[in-house]
Amino acid sequence: MLDIDKYIAAAEEAVRQLEIPATPSGLYDPIRYTLQAGGKRIRPVLTLAVADAVAPDGRRRAANQAAAIEMFHNFTLLHDDVMDRADMRRGRPTVHRQWNEATAILSGDAMLTLAGAAMMKGCDEAQLRPVMELFNRTAMEIYEGQQHDMDFESRTDVTIGEYMEMIRLKTSVLLGCACALGAIMAGADSAVTDAFYGYGESLGLAFQLRDDYLDTYGDPATFGKQIGGDIACGKKTWLLINALAEDTTGTVAAEISDPSPREEKINRVRAVYDSLGLPQRCLGLIRRYADDAIVRLATVGLQPEAMDFFTRLAMQTVDRTR
Amino acid sequence: MLDIDKYIAAAEEAVRQLEIPATPSGLYDPIRYTLQAGGKRIRPVLTLAVADAVAPDGRRRAANQAAAIEMFHNFTLLHDDVMDRADMRRGRPTVHRQWNEATAILSGDAMLTLAGAAMMKGCDEAQLRPVMELFNRTAMEIYEGQQHDMDFESRTDVTIGEYMEMIRLKTSVLLGCACALGAIMAGADSAVTDAFYGYGESLGLAFQLRDDYLDTYGDPATFGKQIGGDIACGKKTWLLINALAEDTTGTVAAEISDPSPREEKINRVRAVYDSLGLPQRCLGLIRRYADDAIVRLATVGLQPEAMDFFTRLAMQTVDRTR
Repeated sequence: MLDIDKYIAAAEEAVRQLEIPATPSGLYDPIRYTLQAGGKRIRPVLTLAVADAVAPDGRRRAANQAAAIEMFHNFTLLHDDVMDRADMRRGRPTVHRQWNEATAILSGDAMLTLAGAAMMKGCDEAQLRPVMELFNRTAMEIYEGQQHDMDFESRTDVTIGEYMEMIRLKTSVLLGCACALGAIMAGADSAVTDAFYGYGESLGLAFQLRDDYLDTYGDPATFGKQIGGDIACGKKTWLLINALAEDTTGTVAAEISDPSPREEKINRVRAVYDSLGLPQRCLGLIRRYADDAIVRLATVGLQPEAMDFFTRLAMQTVDRTR
Repeated sequence: MLDIDKYIAAAEEAVRQLEIPATPSGLYDPIRYTLQAGGKRIRPVLTLAVADAVAPDGRRRAANQAAAIEMFHNFTLLHDDVMDRADMRRGRPTVHRQWNEATAILSGDAMLTLAGAAMMKGCDEAQLRPVMELFNRTAMEIYEGQQHDMDFESRTDVTIGEYMEMIRLKTSVLLGCACALGAIMAGADSAVTDAFYGYGESLGLAFQLRDDYLDTYGDPATFGKQIGGDIACGKKTWLLINALAEDTTGTVAAEISDPSPREEKINRVRAVYDSLGLPQRCLGLIRRYADDAIVRLATVGLQPEAMDFFTRLAMQTVDRTR
């Protein structure tokens, strides 16, 4: 009954129900373009699945918040792509490439406001303030995470502790928020809401570390992005930060600071990662965060099939290849 | 008692009370920089003055919303400056010049979220939804106004009707919102709230037309900006749109499409404006919108000194030289 595909379909439907005006088209077309690009819809799936696990009609009660969290997530991608000067997203030109930068900034601003407006829909008086305070706090944490990520670009002394806090802020809190929103909308108390937040937060750490892993060790046939992109641009990931700290030969530091031919650089850095056992250690850590996520739900008293669903979702994150 | 300077001081104090974290400084320093640049604080002044006119302790009850509206306004300026590639704002480098574009985008996003968070502060259960719905609706209208403004750049057939609707969206609704927020927070009913919204909206139209007028006919000693900037860059203003429609000699169209020497171009276009009687007609229209603003308050039943305050505020807008 608790089938993931069912929630993906429900998430798509919730996103379709978002009311986006037709004109001025210069403002609203890029928003439709962004939302229609798809993506995993993991955040609204979490909102809907948590709501259903808490109350029989949870999915219906949390539909607006599921759509709102997906709108917000897509807003962050849109603005991040401008900041990172990324040309492609999900196989299509980014908004600032397809239109222009002013359009990308303004449409993104509108998405943030539309997300806040959708977040309020269907909230009763007791839900409105907790929902909006959670949403605003989460948004601020995500901006802080993005700022840390940008600050890391010009630093060579980033620690693993700083990195884990950065990805917690930039990625994990939004998955925690997505889960907590489902709980609040379905009428859960604060202990249950907090437990689901913890599930989403730990899942988010596993999710991002898996992203780091796949960028270097993924299968080009399934991952969808060029393998080795993080190494090529010297991005501070869990793998690189550990390698910089442990590689006594200085190979990694030299390769990263040198804009040498791409394929060669990727192969040399990956060889050091291998020699340090980093891929295995990364997979072990991903597994540990997924286990942490599941443990957080132990006190909630979920029905067996709901517990099974959230366990499978966590294990899918551990094993995902794209 | 209802002294404008008193409200400017109260607005400054409300802005100072906004809680902006210290770190990460890359995110929050640009926000402080933007808020500390000053400006007229007209929007929070409206919020506080309206609240005081409605209830004895109105100013205290609306302080968070006054600060929130100023935060929101400064967010729009920050992102508009990136979109317009403006180098200076209030005599200082713009954020994307002082830092960089990514910083300007991200700090602006944070200001929008902080504005929404401040907007919720101090609202009771009955106020929270109306306040947030007004804020979200106003924000969407402002983005639409900015989109129209950008669309106008590449069009030569903009009508005065379209222009008035653009400045209503881009500028006036925020003044209407500022007034309505003060009314809601002080406990006014919807008729009084709507009347104050109408006052702010009409005042905003007068305010923006005065801006158009001063850009061409202002005194360089007091205006603070180079006179003739709008003509130099061919900006579609009330003056230019009327001149393009009425100038049978084709002088204005030719000058605007020609990147000729700056001073000469400004003088020639201004001479056509003069010959068409546009400055006098513009001043007449400003006066009419200011009168409209005052008329909207007739049914509110304000104390004489409050009525006098809002009348003086409207007349200051008509006469302002900077």
